[in-house]
Amino acid sequence: MKSEKIKLYEGRDDVTLTTYLLDDSPRAGKDGKRGAVLVCPGGAYLFCSDREGEPVAMAFANMGYQVFVLRYSVFFAGKPTELVPGREYPVNPDSVFPAPMRDIGRAMLMIKEHADEWAVDADKVAICGFSAGGHNCAMYSVYWNHPIMTDYFGVAAEQLRPAAAILGYPLTDYVAMKANVQADPEAGGLFGLANTAFLGTAEPDDELLAQASPARLVGQQTPPTFIWSTAADALVPIEQSTLYANALAANKIPFEIHVFEDGPHGLSTATQSSAEDRQQLDQDARKWLPLCDAWLYKRFAFEYDS
Amino acid sequence: MKSEKIKLYEGRDDVTLTTYLLDDSPRAGKDGKRGAVLVCPGGAYLFCSDREGEPVAMAFANMGYQVFVLRYSVFFAGKPTELVPGREYPVNPDSVFPAPMRDIGRAMLMIKEHADEWAVDADKVAICGFSAGGHNCAMYSVYWNHPIMTDYFGVAAEQLRPAAAILGYPLTDYVAMKANVQADPEAGGLFGLANTAFLGTAEPDDELLAQASPARLVGQQTPPTFIWSTAADALVPIEQSTLYANALAANKIPFEIHVFEDGPHGLSTATQSSAEDRQQLDQDARKWLPLCDAWLYKRFAFEYDS
Repeated sequence: MKSEKIKLYEGRDDVTLTTYLLDDSPRAGKDGKRGAVLVCPGGAYLFCSDREGEPVAMAFANMGYQVFVLRYSVFFAGKPTELVPGREYPVNPDSVFPAPMRDIGRAMLMIKEHADEWAVDADKVAICGFSAGGHNCAMYSVYWNHPIMTDYFGVAAEQLRPAAAILGYPLTDYVAMKANVQADPEAGGLFGLANTAFLGTAEPDDELLAQASPARLVGQQTPPTFIWSTAADALVPIEQSTLYANALAANKIPFEIHVFEDGPHGLSTATQSSAEDRQQLDQDARKWLPLCDAWLYKRFAFEYDS
Repeated sequence: MKSEKIKLYEGRDDVTLTTYLLDDSPRAGKDGKRGAVLVCPGGAYLFCSDREGEPVAMAFANMGYQVFVLRYSVFFAGKPTELVPGREYPVNPDSVFPAPMRDIGRAMLMIKEHADEWAVDADKVAICGFSAGGHNCAMYSVYWNHPIMTDYFGVAAEQLRPAAAILGYPLTDYVAMKANVQADPEAGGLFGLANTAFLGTAEPDDELLAQASPARLVGQQTPPTFIWSTAADALVPIEQSTLYANALAANKIPFEIHVFEDGPHGLSTATQSSAEDRQQLDQDARKWLPLCDAWLYKRFAFEYDS
């Protein structure tokens, strides 16, 4: 396995692509190439959670895919996270929309450019994100062929196309989230700071909230999508998953959604490979991985000569 | 993840330990340390199969463990395998008993010496082998505290102790195998060459066969063991698994055995991560991995403060 951390931008240490490239059994798959999964950890656009990086990479590598963990632009920019309640934080222009989804675009272009070297099937690159990383992937799912991406990179949309999206307990509708948060001051504190991080203001107007609500922007460009979350999630309401599923259904985009009854926000793999405490172990919710394996296999299965 | 290939012997390229060290989420487990699995691929002591190396490493890394793939001493010594039926091959002294199990010993000592650096819990190092690699692990399971190992390395037996053994479609009883092979000339050809490779003669005597039959040597030193295989295996008869299970039972060593009805020899993970053709995909046999995960978890589960 070749695992290395690559800087996406000269002179910035915070935005990195970590490769997990399988190098034995090169005969696996067509021309030795494999499907790939680009993983975006969560962290409220404030930081990128290690718990949703390498452990998730191991899960997809175990399915036979090449994996990349993207640490995208976030408010604390890779520095130790220091959250002081009530404190006013200045805007960090690096982490404001559309920067984080452009990081996915840059990573996607890098993966496709290195497809031969990295034994990746360029037509089979999925994106997978959790929480804010799930939001980032949902944003990418609706914006990847938009001029905000194609003009910025000066490339044909096709080069940016994701083959599939996997969203774990994502935030997908800021407008709906705002209504929820107004009823819950504690969540509101984190939401306000996350707004400062991603929208450049603690009190974004409705137009900006709508622009950042992929559930309202799903269309024919949106890739097949796998969503999972827990009904008991106290931080991101379950409607953030179901609203997106509804939009996929309305647009006849192939999708699956799995909502498990129990379990807190941020379960990642829900196994000891990612858990930092016992509450992050969940025998039921961890089944999202074999379910996702089967779903991805329908699209990414290797071709065999015999 | 830190993945590197380390030579076990200066000046030899064929015997190597490849590390798969998880480096994120360092808080996982007690003192940040994890259980570890040392993987021995199969290949009839003629070669080491890549299919039973990295794909297996990914499966255990996905469970949260540090993994090491050992390419031990084999007849073709890492060079391209060239099997010509009927040809007489000279003995390669490097691959003859007890060299391959001493390679496990050397790897075990290296892992325990580097336990702090590699974030390994030195009391939780399992060995896992397939086919001939399963034989090698079974040999190690019965010989690790024997002078053939302790005197050779000049260490206390405790430093060589394996915490658990995982055997996939292993060969465990050469005496029984000889009787089977006499009834099957085709298997006999491979068996004869494997004998040349591992026992230094195509026609070993019964005493030597018994020495190389761990099913006859199981005792209180033998670690808890997980065995899996397929009843349809046409190369290594299923009794090679059940004889070893009987010996474990007779010695009251904790064990599990799972024999799946269908599937050829050499399934490895039985998923696309290791399969080179469709015959190596098996929806049932692949369940050995979640079964093994649950079994290992009973011994290697991380400890949490909360």
